Amino acid sequence: MKGIFITLEGPDGSGKSTIIKFLSDYLKTSGVEYIVTREPGGTDIGEDIRKIILDEKNEKMSPVTEALLYAASRGQHVHEKILPALEEGKVVLCERFVLSSLAYQGIARGLGIEKVKKINDFAIQGVNPDITLFFSVDPGLSLGRKVGKNKGDRLEKEGIGFHKEVYEGYLKLIKMYPEVVKVIDASKGVEQTFAAAKGEVEKILKERGVLR
Amino acid sequence: MKGIFITLEGPDGSGKSTIIKFLSDYLKTSGVEYIVTREPGGTDIGEDIRKIILDEKNEKMSPVTEALLYAASRGQHVHEKILPALEEGKVVLCERFVLSSLAYQGIARGLGIEKVKKINDFAIQGVNPDITLFFSVDPGLSLGRKVGKNKGDRLEKEGIGFHKEVYEGYLKLIKMYPEVVKVIDASKGVEQTFAAAKGEVEKILKERGVLR
Repeated sequence: MKGIFITLEGPDGSGKSTIIKFLSDYLKTSGVEYIVTREPGGTDIGEDIRKIILDEKNEKMSPVTEALLYAASRGQHVHEKILPALEEGKVVLCERFVLSSLAYQGIARGLGIEKVKKINDFAIQGVNPDITLFFSVDPGLSLGRKVGKNKGDRLEKEGIGFHKEVYEGYLKLIKMYPEVVKVIDASKGVEQTFAAAKGEVEKILKERGVLR
Repeated sequence: MKGIFITLEGPDGSGKSTIIKFLSDYLKTSGVEYIVTREPGGTDIGEDIRKIILDEKNEKMSPVTEALLYAASRGQHVHEKILPALEEGKVVLCERFVLSSLAYQGIARGLGIEKVKKINDFAIQGVNPDITLFFSVDPGLSLGRKVGKNKGDRLEKEGIGFHKEVYEGYLKLIKMYPEVVKVIDASKGVEQTFAAAKGEVEKILKERGVLR
């Protein structure tokens, strides 16, 4: 694949959505061809799946079903959007990917990292990220940022205990994939966080000869 | 598990829906507690997933996504409906289950039986059927039965070649699971087909002491 696949991961409220906007402005200014996308969703079929996952009425959803729906949405996302963009040589900026499922479903829901990884390997058919930016911030702080913005969907409504487990899960995972995951301190202001994220993106763009 | 899990499998138009009604009448008359259900669907969440799978607008759906959505629907079905009924000691009659995914996605869509079986093993968490009634009928004949009834959904609209592959797939699979799969000749009339299906159901009910 000629393109570069960059994923952004981290707990809810860690600033991924904000930083991805700044990164896309940066790529635009630099004349780099790119797309921005997110999970769950990213395609029409994926958005339909996302609605089922986040719908408050679906409180009976089993963790197994949740994990398979995330994987289904991801499979479509890779097939319809990510892989074609990479084949055209574009940079793909994607908010959340497999690491989210490993942290949320594999660890916090207790399904096990290995099992959740297997269904995701089936979903992504070898399309793994070149680098993953992990936005590190204490879950107490990051969830506080969300409060007052909206009432929250089915996952945001989970208690602080759940989100702490997700965070602990992420910390375990970033140790498992040290070559791919770049830890960005997201506890500081937006400017500092963006500067660190941009530094990592710039580095891989230069390595691959996309930027001089 | 105290209950008995019976699945009905076979190509579109092989008469599964008709026979399942007769079988449920038979169980009712015999005073056996049972539930009737079907896939994809069987739960509110499963019905939402079913709509996505069969929606004609979703022509871009990848085979990988399709297989994961069937597995997700199945996971919810087992969790919310099949396992609780079996734990209450009921007979569960279910139209389509894992064998359908192995035939349709594993073989006809070319994803491979082993890979599709793995994601389904994750979905069903060990809740396998006690017996499977396979309704055997030439796909040319069975699809003819459907013609004129409706315009058909996304899967029914597949060409005859696809449905022949599904059928060949089924024939391969029933050889892989000879202990569980009971082949019912569905090329004859409804009465004869029902008599054969009823014979198999009666046999396992007696073996398990549900009927004398």
